[in-house]
Amino acid sequence: MSQVKTLSASQDYPTHECGVCGIFDHEDAAKLTYFGLYALQHRGQESAGIVTSTGKEVFLHKDMGLVPEIFTEDILQGLKGDMSIGHVRYSTTGASNFTNTQPLMVHHKNQTLSVAHNGNLVNSTELRNRLEESGSIFQTTMDSEAVLHLMVRNSGPDLDKTLSETFRALKGAYSLLYMTEDTLVAVRDPDGFRPLCLGRLTTGGWVIASETCALDLIEADYVRDIEPGEVLIMKRGEEMRSIFPWPKQTPHHCIFEQVYFARPDSDVFGINVYQSRKQMGKILAREAKIDADFVMPFPDSGNYAAIGYAQESGIPMEMGVIRNHYVGRTFIEPSQSMRDFNVKVKLNPVRSLLKGKRVIIVEDSIIRGTTGKSRVRALREAGAKEIHMVVSCPPTMHACYYGIDFPTSSQLIACNKNVEEIAEYLGLDSLHYLSLEGMVEATGIPKEHYCLACFNGIYPIAPDQKYHKDALATKVVKG
Amino acid sequence: MSQVKTLSASQDYPTHECGVCGIFDHEDAAKLTYFGLYALQHRGQESAGIVTSTGKEVFLHKDMGLVPEIFTEDILQGLKGDMSIGHVRYSTTGASNFTNTQPLMVHHKNQTLSVAHNGNLVNSTELRNRLEESGSIFQTTMDSEAVLHLMVRNSGPDLDKTLSETFRALKGAYSLLYMTEDTLVAVRDPDGFRPLCLGRLTTGGWVIASETCALDLIEADYVRDIEPGEVLIMKRGEEMRSIFPWPKQTPHHCIFEQVYFARPDSDVFGINVYQSRKQMGKILAREAKIDADFVMPFPDSGNYAAIGYAQESGIPMEMGVIRNHYVGRTFIEPSQSMRDFNVKVKLNPVRSLLKGKRVIIVEDSIIRGTTGKSRVRALREAGAKEIHMVVSCPPTMHACYYGIDFPTSSQLIACNKNVEEIAEYLGLDSLHYLSLEGMVEATGIPKEHYCLACFNGIYPIAPDQKYHKDALATKVVKG
Amino acid sequence: MSQVKTLSASQDYPTHECGVCGIFDHEDAAKLTYFGLYALQHRGQESAGIVTSTGKEVFLHKDMGLVPEIFTEDILQGLKGDMSIGHVRYSTTGASNFTNTQPLMVHHKNQTLSVAHNGNLVNSTELRNRLEESGSIFQTTMDSEAVLHLMVRNSGPDLDKTLSETFRALKGAYSLLYMTEDTLVAVRDPDGFRPLCLGRLTTGGWVIASETCALDLIEADYVRDIEPGEVLIMKRGEEMRSIFPWPKQTPHHCIFEQVYFARPDSDVFGINVYQSRKQMGKILAREAKIDADFVMPFPDSGNYAAIGYAQESGIPMEMGVIRNHYVGRTFIEPSQSMRDFNVKVKLNPVRSLLKGKRVIIVEDSIIRGTTGKSRVRALREAGAKEIHMVVSCPPTMHACYYGIDFPTSSQLIACNKNVEEIAEYLGLDSLHYLSLEGMVEATGIPKEHYCLACFNGIYPIAPDQKYHKDALATKVVKG
Amino acid sequence: MSQVKTLSASQDYPTHECGVCGIFDHEDAAKLTYFGLYALQHRGQESAGIVTSTGKEVFLHKDMGLVPEIFTEDILQGLKGDMSIGHVRYSTTGASNFTNTQPLMVHHKNQTLSVAHNGNLVNSTELRNRLEESGSIFQTTMDSEAVLHLMVRNSGPDLDKTLSETFRALKGAYSLLYMTEDTLVAVRDPDGFRPLCLGRLTTGGWVIASETCALDLIEADYVRDIEPGEVLIMKRGEEMRSIFPWPKQTPHHCIFEQVYFARPDSDVFGINVYQSRKQMGKILAREAKIDADFVMPFPDSGNYAAIGYAQESGIPMEMGVIRNHYVGRTFIEPSQSMRDFNVKVKLNPVRSLLKGKRVIIVEDSIIRGTTGKSRVRALREAGAKEIHMVVSCPPTMHACYYGIDFPTSSQLIACNKNVEEIAEYLGLDSLHYLSLEGMVEATGIPKEHYCLACFNGIYPIAPDQKYHKDALATKVVKG
Repeated sequence: MSQVKTLSASQDYPTHECGVCGIFDHEDAAKLTYFGLYALQHRGQESAGIVTSTGKEVFLHKDMGLVPEIFTEDILQGLKGDMSIGHVRYSTTGASNFTNTQPLMVHHKNQTLSVAHNGNLVNSTELRNRLEESGSIFQTTMDSEAVLHLMVRNSGPDLDKTLSETFRALKGAYSLLYMTEDTLVAVRDPDGFRPLCLGRLTTGGWVIASETCALDLIEADYVRDIEPGEVLIMKRGEEMRSIFPWPKQTPHHCIFEQVYFARPDSDVFGINVYQSRKQMGKILAREAKIDADFVMPFPDSGNYAAIGYAQESGIPMEMGVIRNHYVGRTFIEPSQSMRDFNVKVKLNPVRSLLKGKRVIIVEDSIIRGTTGKSRVRALREAGAKEIHMVVSCPPTMHACYYGIDFPTSSQLIACNKNVEEIAEYLGLDSLHYLSLEGMVEATGIPKEHYCLACFNGIYPIAPDQKYHKDALATKVVKG
Repeated sequence: MSQVKTLSASQDYPTHECGVCGIFDHEDAAKLTYFGLYALQHRGQESAGIVTSTGKEVFLHKDMGLVPEIFTEDILQGLKGDMSIGHVRYSTTGASNFTNTQPLMVHHKNQTLSVAHNGNLVNSTELRNRLEESGSIFQTTMDSEAVLHLMVRNSGPDLDKTLSETFRALKGAYSLLYMTEDTLVAVRDPDGFRPLCLGRLTTGGWVIASETCALDLIEADYVRDIEPGEVLIMKRGEEMRSIFPWPKQTPHHCIFEQVYFARPDSDVFGINVYQSRKQMGKILAREAKIDADFVMPFPDSGNYAAIGYAQESGIPMEMGVIRNHYVGRTFIEPSQSMRDFNVKVKLNPVRSLLKGKRVIIVEDSIIRGTTGKSRVRALREAGAKEIHMVVSCPPTMHACYYGIDFPTSSQLIACNKNVEEIAEYLGLDSLHYLSLEGMVEATGIPKEHYCLACFNGIYPIAPDQKYHKDALATKVVKG
Repeated sequence: MSQVKTLSASQDYPTHECGVCGIFDHEDAAKLTYFGLYALQHRGQESAGIVTSTGKEVFLHKDMGLVPEIFTEDILQGLKGDMSIGHVRYSTTGASNFTNTQPLMVHHKNQTLSVAHNGNLVNSTELRNRLEESGSIFQTTMDSEAVLHLMVRNSGPDLDKTLSETFRALKGAYSLLYMTEDTLVAVRDPDGFRPLCLGRLTTGGWVIASETCALDLIEADYVRDIEPGEVLIMKRGEEMRSIFPWPKQTPHHCIFEQVYFARPDSDVFGINVYQSRKQMGKILAREAKIDADFVMPFPDSGNYAAIGYAQESGIPMEMGVIRNHYVGRTFIEPSQSMRDFNVKVKLNPVRSLLKGKRVIIVEDSIIRGTTGKSRVRALREAGAKEIHMVVSCPPTMHACYYGIDFPTSSQLIACNKNVEEIAEYLGLDSLHYLSLEGMVEATGIPKEHYCLACFNGIYPIAPDQKYHKDALATKVVKG
Repeated sequence: MSQVKTLSASQDYPTHECGVCGIFDHEDAAKLTYFGLYALQHRGQESAGIVTSTGKEVFLHKDMGLVPEIFTEDILQGLKGDMSIGHVRYSTTGASNFTNTQPLMVHHKNQTLSVAHNGNLVNSTELRNRLEESGSIFQTTMDSEAVLHLMVRNSGPDLDKTLSETFRALKGAYSLLYMTEDTLVAVRDPDGFRPLCLGRLTTGGWVIASETCALDLIEADYVRDIEPGEVLIMKRGEEMRSIFPWPKQTPHHCIFEQVYFARPDSDVFGINVYQSRKQMGKILAREAKIDADFVMPFPDSGNYAAIGYAQESGIPMEMGVIRNHYVGRTFIEPSQSMRDFNVKVKLNPVRSLLKGKRVIIVEDSIIRGTTGKSRVRALREAGAKEIHMVVSCPPTMHACYYGIDFPTSSQLIACNKNVEEIAEYLGLDSLHYLSLEGMVEATGIPKEHYCLACFNGIYPIAPDQKYHKDALATKVVKG
């Protein structure tokens, strides 16, 4: 574990993707949370943590690494209690260190307050400045720390008031779990950027999780999504209840969860992700008609749109590249120049299948384009005669301020090249993106219910003036 | 690393599946071997090792674990030389310990002799007894150790004679690399049970590997297979040459390499494995016509036959279960009864896809049936209305003595139940196996060129009388 | 690393022993701090950390473990800067986890504030309550966190005022280093409970450390002790200067540093520890005259008083027990009953030396008495005929509130038994403690300059009313 | 663990120091062996291993590292049986790798044969050549492997004959344990170079160990030494018995065991090591009369002779340097030039004690002189006015072929300088070695019963002609 970090002031805005899972009223809370986080590991692979409570005592364990690396049987047994919140985290701007792991826990007047947060606040600089003016100090560089300061500042006999005032002070995206000794609160920002759902355990307890795939693994029944703007309060000895601190508004769900980020076996915003992606592939097949020998995905992310494209177009689907199941997270770089090594070590083209063939690659997105370039070249060298690519979303051209980390504009290929230029750069015979309308239509949800900012640049909430995403992303951090 | 082992006499026959890779005449021999083994990791995940030679000095590194865990940049740099042999090993009968890692290296009269062996000798007891009678001692429980003893016993001025006499003494399956300070020898038994191929590096050196996927990764061109009964000799400063110590005979390739064991991107016995498996699926669709909503594999092993079945039948293919990409080799057991947890943690059914549907599962084999039972139940619980299973090979009913480890007869479900009974046990609406003829036909190789023993019980080479596979397999070993 | 912890309210008073080391104006600040902590490892073996500053950027690394386990060459190189503070920590009441490692670092208005603290505050509950009332939250259970809150609350344009107000608010023992981007402050409480000294590097920079042994290792010249009540300010680009926020008072040095805690090669409170301890042994020889064959210490802690006792009494000294140099921190418990195993595995009696002899053991203290009982029995079994024990301090009977952790009164043997009863419990022929006057006399410092509370119960500063040492010590904590 | 090694032919003579321990007839054999090895850790810190037998099954665990690092509770429980042999090893010439760990175990005709060996054979090249001529192959570079080959070659119905013929073929030093499924044999070469003793467990079983300190820890009673030339046979179900395959001869005990190598709490060759060393100090005080303020050892090895010197001379003894108890096996090198850092990090001079004083250092040996030079300089810099050194043995000038590894002649300072030159090199005011006669007299054993070769160059057994110690020691080995 590396704890070295730079802590100069401008480093205050880590953007990250995360997952949360909480349990209420189950004697095995830690273990169920562990499995929930296991299922949500795709939302964050850098660190994980769990806080549990017996109602009187609170226990915490968190560390850098993957869920199964961090938690052992012994540790889970030490995490006593029937309530818990857990978190998996992936940070991309560099402040990846122990201090920034979640859940974040603090103490105040004989009470512990913990928070696990998925999303990103856009007014964290303003909040931090205001809190620092009145004497608060910060130990992490996470915007979630401001939530706990506010909770204390707003604390009083009326819990609903404390929660309402605190959450109303936050601007941005937050699907968040908050826990004290006897209370677990689940909240989803009024735009509902990130998913958050409620499930019922077979024994009667409750689970709240970022995605329904966590419910499947622990055999909980999906009950409903936490609504945008809902604060769900589960207090020991009381009935579960909800408050709604904001006026009702149109939600702005992150469509990138459907396109790329969520697991295909999850239902997100009421829609199954697998079916959405397959439908995107079908609409793409209607929008981009190509004559070819077969359709192929780069497994596994492209599989679902490829199935849709193949079914709609009538062109057979083949697995043109084979995954090496034993590729670890690190490997030794080849010393001699092995072209496209990083691609081939994971996904080896099937030469006898590709030789002389016209193929359509179905991709779920093109970000920088560097991986795509390698992949196309590897297929060419394996003998493919024509290579077409279809992408199951429009060009990604704008930063996200709500919790998904994209490269800066200068690194997004679609910001700098038009479709023809991208095709040429990637070495393709042709390239087709799904239209914005086609993408939205595939999900069956009205367009106005989505945040489409990364595609169309229209931001539901204006980011903090001082928030310079690009500046942050280039900040050199020692870790 | 656990070195504890039982070493009572009856434990002398470890059966295992392995992969080998060797380099001749390349300054980066260790690194290329490392990548070759990386691509062959599916053939053995328990231990790995590399021996290199500079012509004067010999270097060895081996350990328990996966290839990228065992070798670091520093270690590879310490493995100097332009010749090398490497090995990955998987042992199932228990003698999994450091002593049994390969390559095996010994010293004799200022010379080192190393061997890396894929396959299994059937006369190892006899060989060992004979050698022990004349004073040899054994430090491992691997049959490969006998090869080195024979090499020394047969040593003399005529290398060809030494090699011929040694290999002629061996009975069974062996695709084997042997190396001394200045010579690398690749040999394939006259039946050609296991694959072994020769490739040319772009710089002019040579590579020998179990499968062609290793050639792809290190950008070597496939030249040809080492022939059954061929002993290929590469000696420093001499032309590469081959000797054939046996009379020409019909080969007996292991069809299980095509069905299950080899990587689909490899060409094995001259045939691409992906295409073979897809063809098996197609023939299966002709043999077993079923009315259903969709065809689905259990990824990734079932993907290829499923594609064939879907294309031939016209029934669409869907990915009915989703892989969790972050499942490690170990995880904590759930304390409460989570049914079919071991299946679902890896492969989660897509509920909204399966609900109310009639599905055809395409499997590549059914061994014990326990995994299949869990998988079927998980699909049922996700809402599937009808579940049919088609298997892309005939029932597996007989032990293998040539290097693939099956459970004992009592554990092979097809030994104990007929097809109807198996279907009932698995909870299926129907079950269909591919016919022996269909399987062979799919590969395009004449039936007589195959060893089909695990399916039809006809063994090309009779195993050693004293060789009791079942007795061995039940030997309790402490590790 | 184990992060599991209980965080109920009553656990807020970890008592601990620690060491600090800081460097000002040396390009290799991190490395020198590393070696300083290395020399101070006896003051804390549970965790260690270093913060460095380049004047603009601040770097932190800390973790659980010993100094050489935590810091690698790479990590030290990442800790850039010419200023640094470091800390080693030993916690005994259970809150031993990553969160409680030091230095503690926080952020406030683009500034970082770090603190490394040796000692214990007695008004931390009061401070914490007051801070919490005005909205502060706490992330650790260390009293040092209050220091940083106060520093922020008192911050203003006048640094001296900020420091004076902050430190005047603290009651108890603190030899403390505080650092921001451009300033390093060393402060010692007005009682001067714990040592803190200033040294000059050969290159001209400065070092501040808990003990002079840290100066020896990094070849710094001892300049002087930081005075009780002195706040030494080292600011980049300014002359080093001191302020004295309190009126001059009589110091109360912890005599236990002389008796037991400091390293014998250190000078503490102006006196060499080795010489003090030897002198204690000499005075003990005058106070307790015993006829015996030889004097023996339990190495190494008892060596120095034993030398003094032997020289004064004229009775020869022998090493009656031999240390096993390879005893690690953990070992397997013997399954059969091996009596006094824990003693003998570390210190084996020399049978041929002890057989039939009358021996005098010189001990530096008796706390619970359990170890002593085992040691005496082991000597008996090795053949000693008479065993007398002399102790180079008076009976330890009272809790320490200033940073040294003793067992609770109920566990201190001297609280529950008189000298005869202790002798009987330990299995001794006779037992003699050094008198309070003799102990003080041995150091050459006036009695009124010492805190002797653990021996005589007279506390220089009354502990916080709410501070219940015994209650805390019995708190069960899971870690 | 590093397995990389060179295996060219000339590397066949590893010299090493080792310890052995075996248990016969105790249900907890593995655990007792573990503790025995723990006590013998000073004889070898590089690797350790244990073989156990239930009479039918044999279990082995060995690895690189210290005893407590290698064995866990689980592993010890897996090492079933009531018989065992164990080994600790230290190798200096480079072949330090897993393959060369002991015990060495081989299989022959359904029997396992294991050996644990302390000492060094001088005819191993000859033995190896002879065995290789008749077809034996070697997997290690240890001379102990030849023992097992011979055991097999000589095997027959008469166990006594097999053992006698095998051991008679060996020339050199060997205190050795040999075990099969049902028999444990302890043998000591006819010269009795290395110690080996027999103890009785309180439960009635037996222990054989290199030194008596192993007996103390496991509470066994010392019975007697295994005699030089004795082969002690313990066979399941039979009475313990001894055979003596050689004619009676004068022993040649290694006096270096007394001087330096054995633990002071052990009795070796019938004499307590502590008392021998103290007596060496006393005789040295008579031979070398010096006027000084105090006598000081470098702890702990010099303690015992220093006590003798001080008692005889009447000059007080002081601990002039203090050990840092937390120095690990590795630490980071200081980047700036910290003079004598390696000395001071372990042993810090006590400045206030040394300042202006005339001191006598008592050392147990001077090998290369480099450490001594640093130590003397560190004392000078701490203020010592006069520094004299007395050494409790004569100058070490000759190689050892019987199992103790010295540097080559060119590196032994006494081979290249006379006493005055050494004193000058070390920076001493005077230097005195104990005489050969004084050293022998101190032990009370007749001079002719010792091997004094390292001091006087008279070798009891001529080493193998081909054995070039110096050539070996300079062999570069990659590890």
